[in-house]
Amino acid sequence: MVEGRRSSLKFGKPRGTKDFLPEDMRVRRFIFDRVRKVFEQHGFEEMDTPALELWEVLSAKGGEDVERQIYKFQDKGDRWLGLRFDLTVPLARVVANNPDLVKPFRRYMISKAWRYEEPQSGRFREFLQADIDIVGSARMEADMDCVSTAVDALKALKLNDFEVRINNRKILEGMIDNLGIVGQNATKVFRALDKLDKVGEEGVRKELSGFGLNEDKRERILNFTRYRGEEALGYAEREFGSSKVALKGLEELERLDELSDAFGLGNLLNIDFSLVRGLDYYTGPVFEVKAKTAQIGSVAGGGRYDSLIEKFGGVSTPATGISLGIERLYEVISDKIKAENKTSLTQVFVANVNEEVALDAIKIGRELVDRGIFTEVDIMGRKLVRQLEYANNKGIPYVLIVGPEELKIGKFKLKDMRAKKETLVDFESVIRTML
Amino acid sequence: MVEGRRSSLKFGKPRGTKDFLPEDMRVRRFIFDRVRKVFEQHGFEEMDTPALELWEVLSAKGGEDVERQIYKFQDKGDRWLGLRFDLTVPLARVVANNPDLVKPFRRYMISKAWRYEEPQSGRFREFLQADIDIVGSARMEADMDCVSTAVDALKALKLNDFEVRINNRKILEGMIDNLGIVGQNATKVFRALDKLDKVGEEGVRKELSGFGLNEDKRERILNFTRYRGEEALGYAEREFGSSKVALKGLEELERLDELSDAFGLGNLLNIDFSLVRGLDYYTGPVFEVKAKTAQIGSVAGGGRYDSLIEKFGGVSTPATGISLGIERLYEVISDKIKAENKTSLTQVFVANVNEEVALDAIKIGRELVDRGIFTEVDIMGRKLVRQLEYANNKGIPYVLIVGPEELKIGKFKLKDMRAKKETLVDFESVIRTML
Repeated sequence: MVEGRRSSLKFGKPRGTKDFLPEDMRVRRFIFDRVRKVFEQHGFEEMDTPALELWEVLSAKGGEDVERQIYKFQDKGDRWLGLRFDLTVPLARVVANNPDLVKPFRRYMISKAWRYEEPQSGRFREFLQADIDIVGSARMEADMDCVSTAVDALKALKLNDFEVRINNRKILEGMIDNLGIVGQNATKVFRALDKLDKVGEEGVRKELSGFGLNEDKRERILNFTRYRGEEALGYAEREFGSSKVALKGLEELERLDELSDAFGLGNLLNIDFSLVRGLDYYTGPVFEVKAKTAQIGSVAGGGRYDSLIEKFGGVSTPATGISLGIERLYEVISDKIKAENKTSLTQVFVANVNEEVALDAIKIGRELVDRGIFTEVDIMGRKLVRQLEYANNKGIPYVLIVGPEELKIGKFKLKDMRAKKETLVDFESVIRTML
Repeated sequence: MVEGRRSSLKFGKPRGTKDFLPEDMRVRRFIFDRVRKVFEQHGFEEMDTPALELWEVLSAKGGEDVERQIYKFQDKGDRWLGLRFDLTVPLARVVANNPDLVKPFRRYMISKAWRYEEPQSGRFREFLQADIDIVGSARMEADMDCVSTAVDALKALKLNDFEVRINNRKILEGMIDNLGIVGQNATKVFRALDKLDKVGEEGVRKELSGFGLNEDKRERILNFTRYRGEEALGYAEREFGSSKVALKGLEELERLDELSDAFGLGNLLNIDFSLVRGLDYYTGPVFEVKAKTAQIGSVAGGGRYDSLIEKFGGVSTPATGISLGIERLYEVISDKIKAENKTSLTQVFVANVNEEVALDAIKIGRELVDRGIFTEVDIMGRKLVRQLEYANNKGIPYVLIVGPEELKIGKFKLKDMRAKKETLVDFESVIRTML
């Protein structure tokens, strides 16, 4: 990976973005292939949408924190556009635009999103997400299907030892309702709580008093976030049992718990009242997958957003989904995968001993490709020793050496670059060695 | 494919962009997989760069026509950025930034680019390209390697009957030089000629007189564009033999011809003096692949750009490449591939006869996934008949029906949806049927 260059370099790249050279890209391809396969094994199908969306779409439900982070611009027709900040809003727009999609609509999408993050956040401004979502089911089975598929995808990336934290926005709503906090202030409380991991209780306390919550309310909110597991359920029932919305949230949490065994998540699920998730559009369960071992924290997160599709002019449609943060996963597994995949995809380099047989070498290279062998030929007019050097540098395991003497008898020298052994073979034996 | 909606729809998508629903995406995935494999078989390796580039980078060598088409905006740090308009400029920037890359550097990239095209042009504003480039070789072997790989990729997409038109910018330069046309006017002639296919000779004539070329010069330029094949070589030698640059161009064209057999392009290559290619950065051979049968015209094009990397502050490095226009290819093969791939990727839908056994059905679904079977389970709490309807709608070939009676004896009803046959089988026979 080539680190983001200083923006002071005239012909560098924008801050917070990355170039991925072939050795990096092999790791990313490994991630894409594994994740894609798991998604498809669980019945999710791929979709793609434009990177550009109309400003009206992007600003409809992101929340003002996110709005500030959107790359926004006018096209030459004076229409305001922006780069998508996640893959959920485009999905909701597509579902609203295509009412005839068969439900449940299970889609995955592995693609980039853009946010103008402050450089000190350590986050990238262009980042890849792998999202799975189920549209059309209000049942907790849909949420669990997404979470368990995400966990399977993480396992396919050779990660283990997870914790799935879950909470429910409805309980949070009930709690805030109970304190008489309404409208914009409620949204502000969600946003303040979302920073708990980053700024700690003291930071959240400060932010809450910033918009006029008194000490009692502040402490009751913070107290709420300290509950976990069974204890949390009991506490919420006692405290917010009178709130219809909180009760519905509790019911949903309990149902998730009931389903966890069947979905293979038995001992992974942890109710955690400190979990909020930043985006404004969640309406029910929210979840986050943490890798317990490495210092990497959250590697996947999502939740239910039952009112988002309606927002875009669609029929009211329940939906839920989870997103894997590919950039973080890439950072975690990159070194290991690179160490395991030292050799080039190319199986054989066809070298020529001199210019006189160069065209023959090219022809033989094409015949190898036609037989399904991954082949490179010399296109530099280099001396043999330089051709061997190149193949060695690139980790190409075999070099086929084409010379005039050998051509006459229909044979070639095949050099095994690792064993440093050379044998005289005919074309069919070359093929057999490679297959 | 969902056609670009009118921009008057508030929650639509930007004009000139497309959504790809799962059935469309299966076709695109087919294209990606085939093309990627051919590229890798020919020793090209994948790379990725940000969609965003600094404005200085994008405007350095695109030419003013292209500059006008770039989506350009300021980030919150007041830096001017834009969306890339092709994949070549980012490659040149990366090579300039990474002088230690082993040469030849053979990279492919399948990714999107953006241009603000006029809607009537019939082109998309967001489009996917598949580029292969070889950096570090000044030899015509590199050009031919790119062209023959592109042709192999097109064949892998089941397209046939191509024509590869080639020309050389150096001959064009010599011709223009000969007429005493220099500087900006030379660039303008290139741009005018590039429109020949679109606006015809009369249109080009008009454009040429627009910037003050007299009739004699105009007609000599147009006459030049009418030459093809061997005749073109003879004509150029007679007319521009005194121009050093034109002679070098001729030499390159002749060498390409010499190499064509070895690269399997023997009867495909056609010298065509009307071929210019729009971008300003080409310095030598330019090429374009046309599908002769369908009415689709150019499906791939490119050329040599030996001075581009230097422009970005790199060491002077020769480079050449070709780009496959995926959007056009998609349009051509989409219907055929869709007709051939009616069935879902999902192999089996696990249905439950009632709520009582729903969790068992989910568990069995997970066991199937663990054994490598592509499986979907019910997450809607639907009645059996509705579950069967759904599986049928989606083209899922088998439904495994889980019922309380069958669970007791460790068997299931397996319904073959095409044959409309139901058999009572155990778990291992299900697996055997699917593998």
